[in-house]
Amino acid sequence: MLINKIGEFGLIEKFKRLIKTDSSVIVGSGDDCAVLEFDKNNYLLFTCDMLVKGVDFKACDDPYLVGRKSLAISISDIASCCGLPRYCLISLGMPKNTSIKYADRLFKGMLSIAQKFKINITGGDLSRSGEVTIDVSMLGIVEKKNLVLRSRAKIGDMICVTGELGGSILGKHLRFVPRLEEAAFLAKNFKINSMIDISDGLIQDLGHILRQSNRGAMIYENLLPISKCSSGLADALYSGEDFELLFTLNKNEAQRLLEKSDKFKIIGEVVSEKQGLRLIDKRGRQKFLSIKGFRHF
Amino acid sequence: MLINKIGEFGLIEKFKRLIKTDSSVIVGSGDDCAVLEFDKNNYLLFTCDMLVKGVDFKACDDPYLVGRKSLAISISDIASCCGLPRYCLISLGMPKNTSIKYADRLFKGMLSIAQKFKINITGGDLSRSGEVTIDVSMLGIVEKKNLVLRSRAKIGDMICVTGELGGSILGKHLRFVPRLEEAAFLAKNFKINSMIDISDGLIQDLGHILRQSNRGAMIYENLLPISKCSSGLADALYSGEDFELLFTLNKNEAQRLLEKSDKFKIIGEVVSEKQGLRLIDKRGRQKFLSIKGFRHF
Repeated sequence: MLINKIGEFGLIEKFKRLIKTDSSVIVGSGDDCAVLEFDKNNYLLFTCDMLVKGVDFKACDDPYLVGRKSLAISISDIASCCGLPRYCLISLGMPKNTSIKYADRLFKGMLSIAQKFKINITGGDLSRSGEVTIDVSMLGIVEKKNLVLRSRAKIGDMICVTGELGGSILGKHLRFVPRLEEAAFLAKNFKINSMIDISDGLIQDLGHILRQSNRGAMIYENLLPISKCSSGLADALYSGEDFELLFTLNKNEAQRLLEKSDKFKIIGEVVSEKQGLRLIDKRGRQKFLSIKGFRHF
Repeated sequence: MLINKIGEFGLIEKFKRLIKTDSSVIVGSGDDCAVLEFDKNNYLLFTCDMLVKGVDFKACDDPYLVGRKSLAISISDIASCCGLPRYCLISLGMPKNTSIKYADRLFKGMLSIAQKFKINITGGDLSRSGEVTIDVSMLGIVEKKNLVLRSRAKIGDMICVTGELGGSILGKHLRFVPRLEEAAFLAKNFKINSMIDISDGLIQDLGHILRQSNRGAMIYENLLPISKCSSGLADALYSGEDFELLFTLNKNEAQRLLEKSDKFKIIGEVVSEKQGLRLIDKRGRQKFLSIKGFRHF
């Protein structure tokens, strides 16, 4: 039996059940970052992301943007826990016949985003491989009082997003700016109950919040900030790699948020688990949504 | 121009020159682990290692042992800084047609060594890829007073190793026990001036110590603990993946060490840089050695 029979999340669940961690691990597998004891006021955030040529980027993509993306996705994970990225290691697999120019631009892209967000590149591993493969592991710091997880969405919370959804494949997935500034703004001024970054598509990532919080949700088509690059509603709901923040907070906080900034949009509401996940379309009709999105297998 | 023209270490040097780090980075790229500020008495160690099927292991290798190795090499890196491994993330790339049984044994191997050394597996990333690719990033803790680097070998130091050298390809590279216990014993009882684990071959890894310490060395063929699995002297000198500790300490300390334990062997002496790196063969003849060993390209 092959792994695509049980799928990416089936495999993760299968493995996760076997793992035991000690009390210094606040959150292990299952959130955007692992959360580890650090000091009195702060936790350490620890995350990694692998990019493979032919899967996560194309041979024709500018390696500068690929390098940039390889760090940006981990920065986005740390942002979605309301932390600050601090250190990273880069494991880089390349075929022998990779040009120095390609490697160079890849690295320059990594360097540019590391500098922009003041992240220390502290080493890595260089390996021969069949296809260009990049795995970045990143450490961040989050104030204990600011930590936001996927698992604490409350009934009645407003569901919000940054930016626009869909059409990322046309370029945004290589050029997006991780929402670190927005996350810091949220952490500083509001009580956020749950958050995730949209890497596998709005509905699949909302599904992670709902499943881990034991909640349901109503999403309003009218309210969705669909990108002009999007090919339509399904694209906005299910396409991966928007790398926007998706979060929930109570109604009063949401009200205050909208008054204070125009960077955030309400798209729906958290409801009880038994009500499931529903979309209210433009004509007011309700439709149950199945949780799907990008899966590796 | 292709990357194999400037080689693995040429490429690393090229990239390293461009990296700037802040003062919380005690040691960045260039040692077995990055060393980061943690608390009053301890540093954080941060390391990663990538394994690629067809390069670092074979299709016929038992995936249980491959999984085990993927963590063992990072544990070995942390041991060579005299630290304790604590947390890891696992990025795993697999082709769609990987069997669940293969993935399962791979993971069970990871789990077995994580449990043995009390390491928390805190998550990871699962990705589709052309070949099975595993990148493990690991965090450890080291007492500041115990930290050992590559760069502090002193003239007159004895050069020592654990275990036996050569022939690792016949099985040891998949089954080795990282020298964590030995490193802890050294840290507790002796003043070690420099240390590295032998991953690319004795001479190449000794070369890292010598170059970073600005020293030379004399190695005595007579004293080399050559493995029975080894195909001879060249194999013991240049083959990779022994994963033994290679370290230097002053003569008195070395004397004490040999009296206290039979797990360590003296193989040579640190000399001035201008004397270069020489082997004294069994008939007392001196031979200059060139620094070579396993390179990815």
